[in-house]
Amino acid sequence: MNKIKIPLQTIITFLGVNVLEVKGPVDDVFVDNIADVAHTIESTLDWVNPVKKNKQQMAENSMAKVILVDKDVVYSDLLKKFGKTLIYVENPKAAFSLVGNAFFVQIEAPGIHPTAVIDPDTQIGENVFIGAFAVIGKAIIGDGCRISSFVRIYDNVIVGTNCYFKEGAVIGGPGFGFEKDENGNRFRFPQIGRVIIGNEVEVGANTCVDRGALSDTIIEDYVKIDNLCHIAHNVHLGKNVIITCSTAVGGSCVIGDNVWIGPNSTIRDQRKVGKNAFLGMGSVVMKDVPEGEVWAGNPARSIS
Amino acid sequence: MNKIKIPLQTIITFLGVNVLEVKGPVDDVFVDNIADVAHTIESTLDWVNPVKKNKQQMAENSMAKVILVDKDVVYSDLLKKFGKTLIYVENPKAAFSLVGNAFFVQIEAPGIHPTAVIDPDTQIGENVFIGAFAVIGKAIIGDGCRISSFVRIYDNVIVGTNCYFKEGAVIGGPGFGFEKDENGNRFRFPQIGRVIIGNEVEVGANTCVDRGALSDTIIEDYVKIDNLCHIAHNVHLGKNVIITCSTAVGGSCVIGDNVWIGPNSTIRDQRKVGKNAFLGMGSVVMKDVPEGEVWAGNPARSIS
Amino acid sequence: MNKIKIPLQTIITFLGVNVLEVKGPVDDVFVDNIADVAHTIESTLDWVNPVKKNKQQMAENSMAKVILVDKDVVYSDLLKKFGKTLIYVENPKAAFSLVGNAFFVQIEAPGIHPTAVIDPDTQIGENVFIGAFAVIGKAIIGDGCRISSFVRIYDNVIVGTNCYFKEGAVIGGPGFGFEKDENGNRFRFPQIGRVIIGNEVEVGANTCVDRGALSDTIIEDYVKIDNLCHIAHNVHLGKNVIITCSTAVGGSCVIGDNVWIGPNSTIRDQRKVGKNAFLGMGSVVMKDVPEGEVWAGNPARSIS
Repeated sequence: MNKIKIPLQTIITFLGVNVLEVKGPVDDVFVDNIADVAHTIESTLDWVNPVKKNKQQMAENSMAKVILVDKDVVYSDLLKKFGKTLIYVENPKAAFSLVGNAFFVQIEAPGIHPTAVIDPDTQIGENVFIGAFAVIGKAIIGDGCRISSFVRIYDNVIVGTNCYFKEGAVIGGPGFGFEKDENGNRFRFPQIGRVIIGNEVEVGANTCVDRGALSDTIIEDYVKIDNLCHIAHNVHLGKNVIITCSTAVGGSCVIGDNVWIGPNSTIRDQRKVGKNAFLGMGSVVMKDVPEGEVWAGNPARSIS
Repeated sequence: MNKIKIPLQTIITFLGVNVLEVKGPVDDVFVDNIADVAHTIESTLDWVNPVKKNKQQMAENSMAKVILVDKDVVYSDLLKKFGKTLIYVENPKAAFSLVGNAFFVQIEAPGIHPTAVIDPDTQIGENVFIGAFAVIGKAIIGDGCRISSFVRIYDNVIVGTNCYFKEGAVIGGPGFGFEKDENGNRFRFPQIGRVIIGNEVEVGANTCVDRGALSDTIIEDYVKIDNLCHIAHNVHLGKNVIITCSTAVGGSCVIGDNVWIGPNSTIRDQRKVGKNAFLGMGSVVMKDVPEGEVWAGNPARSIS
Repeated sequence: MNKIKIPLQTIITFLGVNVLEVKGPVDDVFVDNIADVAHTIESTLDWVNPVKKNKQQMAENSMAKVILVDKDVVYSDLLKKFGKTLIYVENPKAAFSLVGNAFFVQIEAPGIHPTAVIDPDTQIGENVFIGAFAVIGKAIIGDGCRISSFVRIYDNVIVGTNCYFKEGAVIGGPGFGFEKDENGNRFRFPQIGRVIIGNEVEVGANTCVDRGALSDTIIEDYVKIDNLCHIAHNVHLGKNVIITCSTAVGGSCVIGDNVWIGPNSTIRDQRKVGKNAFLGMGSVVMKDVPEGEVWAGNPARSIS
């Protein structure tokens, strides 16, 4: 797919201070893609996972000419003989990701598709992509955001920079709150709060983030939410929270920084999950979860 | 956001017979919004929850000038001194909701967005809102319905009055039924039934309600379904049923009036859930649930 | 709804070699719909389930004039007296489905809705339906496919023949993979793989199938996926796999042929589920599941 030949020197320059050392040829060496181990060929970039035991062997067996490694890999006679180049970095996977994202991942170019329906009072930053059939109300959208097709962003949603909304995400819809009338029939409790989203946040496809009822729903920087999740009204997600697919977070939950929530989990409304906690897949969380604990099960219990 | 000043007399008139008594000033008093306790200011409407023990104190501590209360709250010297106004009602939360909805919640004005794709034979009632990029087949849509963007309503869907469909809801798609051919490969069992929806029903964002296979899927009045739910073919939901987020209701299930289904629950096809039953979050319901019982767990069991 | 009168001879001819024998009148007999037992009338086609004990009685009690039966049902004096016609087949339900699909189910006629946004380099086969507001990248779409409204198909998605995508399905979006930077903040691991889909595959409404990270996500022939499912990057679904609603399949899972996955199940990434296995509803699968076993629960265990 991506057959642009990138000079190795360009990649080294791009990685900058991340590069500790380079051993082997650089001039006239090119990289034309990234690949997994089964599909690595001479021209694809490879990397050796630092946690593996047989790192030296992995580097020597790689089909790739250019390999990102940590300091434990030796530039052996074998590597030298085959004309390989080792790029030494602290974190080969991170360096591999950076190069891949910069040179071989195609993302949407900034621009607003003519079919998108956008309120004239919306504030849209620089370098924003808005896809076909997106519908955006009186919101504030920061620089570098990517808003995919069929995304709905309501009035009073404030989004920081470099956020990414996948298809069908609904941000700021009225939450699920009702009151009963004198006949026992339900009618809506007012939902007039906002949604405040930080920087570098991702919201997955068909995921819903409801507006606050009377105050706000808040999502801090670097939160990543996978597809098909429900984030109810007044939830507060701390920095770097990961919410994997098909998860439901109940109203007014407070989820601390760096919490990891496994697929298809459910958190009861108004629960607090302390920072750095880990909730296993399928967790049904009825109680507050203390900081740093590992919980799982239905109902979820500590398994730390 | 909503800085229209509403005269208190207008609110009292609006509440009509719900108002048992008013104590304190009315003339030249205005309300300009609703708020939660952390954001209440002099000009926002407040209410005191009847189930709280310290109701008198809550009223006296409120920053708001106008407070909805039940009969237990006394118009004390303190309240009088600060010029507060108490509006006595049976149900302060319901009255608060009614006022909020009427004066401070902005909903879509009736009208059909020019991008919506609507079958010429669709019957659409009065005061209906249809949002951008909705797609509607030969259906019947009652008065006062609100159909959000990206909603798909199929042929042979009949909807009562004042129903609300959020973004991405799919109503009347063909259900998940198959038969095997002589090679063991599956092909569709015909799905030709209708979806019949009563009045005052809500269907959440990205929720799917499949048409009946050979007969109908039926949703009675006042049913409220949250986001990301799946209602399979031939399901019958009784009046006032609440289905919270991410729940899956299997084919031909019969759910009685007033049943409450917790988030991310699953109900096996053809089960009956008796009226007034309560299913806890994450319930995996394999058996019929008798009337009025409380079930939870995987598999779900009675915990009444 | 469907009041076209189909001559019985047309139906017999259509079923061809599936028909073992016909007893009773054929000339001047017409069928005008299919129905379930509660709605069967003289002119609707009926069938008798071979697994039932009272098959003879079911046939004799049917209101329908034409009934699909297996060899155990006798063309009794009673059936003869009422002028019924029995069509003998191996599998009455399959024959009923074939007739229903061919004569009484209305599906979209081939054609591309003018609002669909399609990359000029997309390869689209013969007799393809593409609905309003679909968005399709540089993909390959085989003959006879049906792509509903609000479906998003990304670049590098390859789809076989006669596949069916319901509303809001997202095929080939970038998966949920991240790497941490030096400050512990996450950024995307590159997602550049493809999605390869076989023939006769169904993908439900609002279901997401992520592209592979560095290699491909693969869905084999006859796979049927229900609404609101998540299929993560690099998953491989074998032939005839059934994934019911609200299920989450983790990254790089390998699901063998003919596996049946119950509603709202969750499968941990990188697990293998052997062919012909059956996972009960609400299964939370942490370990590999051997061939042919029945597992259920949270965590899931063998209950074979």
